Amino acid sequence: MEDGLEIKVRAAYVDTDQMGFVHHSNYVKYLEYARWEWFRFMGLPYKTIEENGILMPVVDMQLHFVKPIYYDDLISIDLEVKLVGAARLKFDYGLYNEHGQLLHSAQTILAFVKKSTKRPCRVPDAISSLLSQFDLKISAFSITV
Amino acid sequence: MEDGLEIKVRAAYVDTDQMGFVHHSNYVKYLEYARWEWFRFMGLPYKTIEENGILMPVVDMQLHFVKPIYYDDLISIDLEVKLVGAARLKFDYGLYNEHGQLLHSAQTILAFVKKSTKRPCRVPDAISSLLSQFDLKISAFSITV
Amino acid sequence: MEDGLEIKVRAAYVDTDQMGFVHHSNYVKYLEYARWEWFRFMGLPYKTIEENGILMPVVDMQLHFVKPIYYDDLISIDLEVKLVGAARLKFDYGLYNEHGQLLHSAQTILAFVKKSTKRPCRVPDAISSLLSQFDLKISAFSITV
Amino acid sequence: MEDGLEIKVRAAYVDTDQMGFVHHSNYVKYLEYARWEWFRFMGLPYKTIEENGILMPVVDMQLHFVKPIYYDDLISIDLEVKLVGAARLKFDYGLYNEHGQLLHSAQTILAFVKKSTKRPCRVPDAISSLLSQFDLKISAFSITV
Repeated sequence: MEDGLEIKVRAAYVDTDQMGFVHHSNYVKYLEYARWEWFRFMGLPYKTIEENGILMPVVDMQLHFVKPIYYDDLISIDLEVKLVGAARLKFDYGLYNEHGQLLHSAQTILAFVKKSTKRPCRVPDAISSLLSQFDLKISAFSITV
Repeated sequence: MEDGLEIKVRAAYVDTDQMGFVHHSNYVKYLEYARWEWFRFMGLPYKTIEENGILMPVVDMQLHFVKPIYYDDLISIDLEVKLVGAARLKFDYGLYNEHGQLLHSAQTILAFVKKSTKRPCRVPDAISSLLSQFDLKISAFSITV
Repeated sequence: MEDGLEIKVRAAYVDTDQMGFVHHSNYVKYLEYARWEWFRFMGLPYKTIEENGILMPVVDMQLHFVKPIYYDDLISIDLEVKLVGAARLKFDYGLYNEHGQLLHSAQTILAFVKKSTKRPCRVPDAISSLLSQFDLKISAFSITV
Repeated sequence: MEDGLEIKVRAAYVDTDQMGFVHHSNYVKYLEYARWEWFRFMGLPYKTIEENGILMPVVDMQLHFVKPIYYDDLISIDLEVKLVGAARLKFDYGLYNEHGQLLHSAQTILAFVKKSTKRPCRVPDAISSLLSQFDLKISAFSITV
């Protein structure tokens, strides 16, 4: 986990279903929450990205459910971010309980789209420089975000 | 119920919570579904209203939970629509199970907002004429929608 | 706000709709979050209540939408809790933006139901004593939670 | 599509986000809807399965977003069902607009879990016989569900 960034989410009551644990669709919200908190931590809130005319829709996602998440569980989310080609961003996620057990792993791929034209575009400079700065950090500290 | 309009919604699995019935927040979605189906039936889909530059946000809602709704229940929704002043639309809803028992009653008040300015505006002509035509129908047939 | 309890919620991207602000159904989740955080703060997490065989379904709610909540807004939620008769709990909520402007006010009434029988029951002792202890606190400090 | 089964879902307003189309998490609900409608059509509603003591949690899902789904779009969902080993059920989905264009493809894998013990179990006889009967149908009619 990147210097001091700890992404935690608490499973809400509304997130459960009658099986007695969190419904699989709600994990998707936890992943979204995690990646925008990561962007915020890196100094580039997703809100700012949209205000600069770029949307980042999810184009692909894979979710693997290992153990259930129960109401009120406090979940830690690890994530790893990578540029894929010139126009895609890949996030890998691990969700852990308070005992460090892996509950869930996932991957999402996001595209970049111009808000004005709704057409795909290349990764904005602000994001690629954030990622390169971030790679430096990683190599310097030998850690995985 | 207006000549031939029957609004039915089936409670989805994702709508339940660990109490074993539909979570109270999901009723709000059923009400939204019901009012847009009513507009569609009246020949003025909400999509068309938005395409004509008008948004209709909810400004007030009251929900009364009488009996639980369970997964897979098929619910009938009755609604009554009234103009309130020059700029608000009031919907009253009744949700019934297949035995005709009242499960839920609700009221929502919607405003009219110009999409371009995000400022409140008066009821659009298309909607007020739809409602007056609809009042005629009601008086002619002596029915409550 | 009760000594040190600050309930804050950040509007998630998934909570918005195509009007460009938070969909009215999602406020219901913010209210739920606020009341369970209040119970946690008071030393009686809702999870514990359920583990002791009591469910607390919402039986009535009223929501008044004053100003929109936008994506990524950080919202402060004030709440006031009162016992209503012997079997209902009433919560009044105020949602404020970072400038202290009221965005939303709401009221929810919750019943107590035995998990085993799904029948209504009186307020559990743990909750009434929590509330009476809490009233003492209020009178002592002359504050509104 | 199996003799007469047409699974259609209409994109709800609440399903959209501020990008102006359906949020990626809501596709997960459409898939759930489709598979339970398929079970209902085959004479074995998922509700009945749960009433017989079996839960079917999703253990893996993959979603590929091809084109956006907009508010009020009427989507057709095709699905293909296969038993995987003795204890998993795989669904492949295709979501199409009214012009027959593929908007989305997905795959979900479901396990079987005993409600009483919350432990995994083999595919229940009722489901395997439904699937074998269904394979006969397929070979007889040479169609893909």
